[in-house]
Amino acid sequence: MQTTSAGFNLPSWVKGWVSTCVQIHGDFSSLEARMDFTIKLAQQNIKQQTGGPFAATIFNLKNQQLLSVGINIVVPSHNSTNHAEMTAIILAQQALQTYNLSEHGHFELLTSCEPCAMCFGAIPWSGIKHLAYAAASKDAQAIGFDEGAKHPHWINELEKRGIKVTPKILRDKAAQVLQSYQQQGGMMY
Amino acid sequence: MQTTSAGFNLPSWVKGWVSTCVQIHGDFSSLEARMDFTIKLAQQNIKQQTGGPFAATIFNLKNQQLLSVGINIVVPSHNSTNHAEMTAIILAQQALQTYNLSEHGHFELLTSCEPCAMCFGAIPWSGIKHLAYAAASKDAQAIGFDEGAKHPHWINELEKRGIKVTPKILRDKAAQVLQSYQQQGGMMY
Repeated sequence: MQTTSAGFNLPSWVKGWVSTCVQIHGDFSSLEARMDFTIKLAQQNIKQQTGGPFAATIFNLKNQQLLSVGINIVVPSHNSTNHAEMTAIILAQQALQTYNLSEHGHFELLTSCEPCAMCFGAIPWSGIKHLAYAAASKDAQAIGFDEGAKHPHWINELEKRGIKVTPKILRDKAAQVLQSYQQQGGMMY
Repeated sequence: MQTTSAGFNLPSWVKGWVSTCVQIHGDFSSLEARMDFTIKLAQQNIKQQTGGPFAATIFNLKNQQLLSVGINIVVPSHNSTNHAEMTAIILAQQALQTYNLSEHGHFELLTSCEPCAMCFGAIPWSGIKHLAYAAASKDAQAIGFDEGAKHPHWINELEKRGIKVTPKILRDKAAQVLQSYQQQGGMMY
């Protein structure tokens, strides 16, 4: 056994890019505006070549304030669990020093693409109360990504646990971002 | 947005405890011996009061060498994704600097309890080729843990992806460890 500690850093462009976006277009009162920002973050991760074509954000629904962002950094971080949703959840929980976001308010996870089997499984444990996604699994599969074996009634299973799901917000825009990754010859895994 | 980096440390007793075990009982040629060690690690996490009653290990099947260990540190690390299987996978990948263990050999994940929905979803992405578990989901549910909504044919879904599954090795022993956690008044989440 070699090591008992691990961690990750989002790429160095993230902090500055996010704070510029928040200053310039920072009206996040609509779900569409929050998702548009999330999709732009995925697009930026492709442009910067710092990971997969996926991004996620977590907002406090009480005041529409951004709590955390996540991007897919599986390849550069040598960590197959570092999907966008997972990094966003981990950073949100770290910011509030809790393993259960629901103890601190009503938080929403937005993701540029339907969650895979792992991220779906992680959502109930996170304390998130609302999930919104843009591109569908089919759009990710169309460019060669595997989404895993999710429960066939996954939306219903989340809703049974008190988590509201809003599917396919700005789907076409997010699907175009996935296609641009493929056209650029981005790595599939 | 407050932060863009995160990490975890397994508790400080882990390194010394593991290396003593490896020195004293280090014949890991049988699956039972590897699982017995994994269950003892879960038991030790209860005794030390450093997390949930779950542990996982990853072995290289070529030489039965231990690559990494993981324990459930959800509560102390403020991170709902830090299940035993996840921490073991992350540490194994970090040790080999890869997001896909299958590129470096034939690795086995042992877990003291059937994986939850999130950990099930993480397994195909990890590059693990064999999963063995001890206690069943029912045993965890019996003491109050939620296992999530796993695909109804989850073992079949893993096997379709080339991952062999060996269920319920030393189940009774692992179930007793879960019961001892409950008797001690351990936190459920």
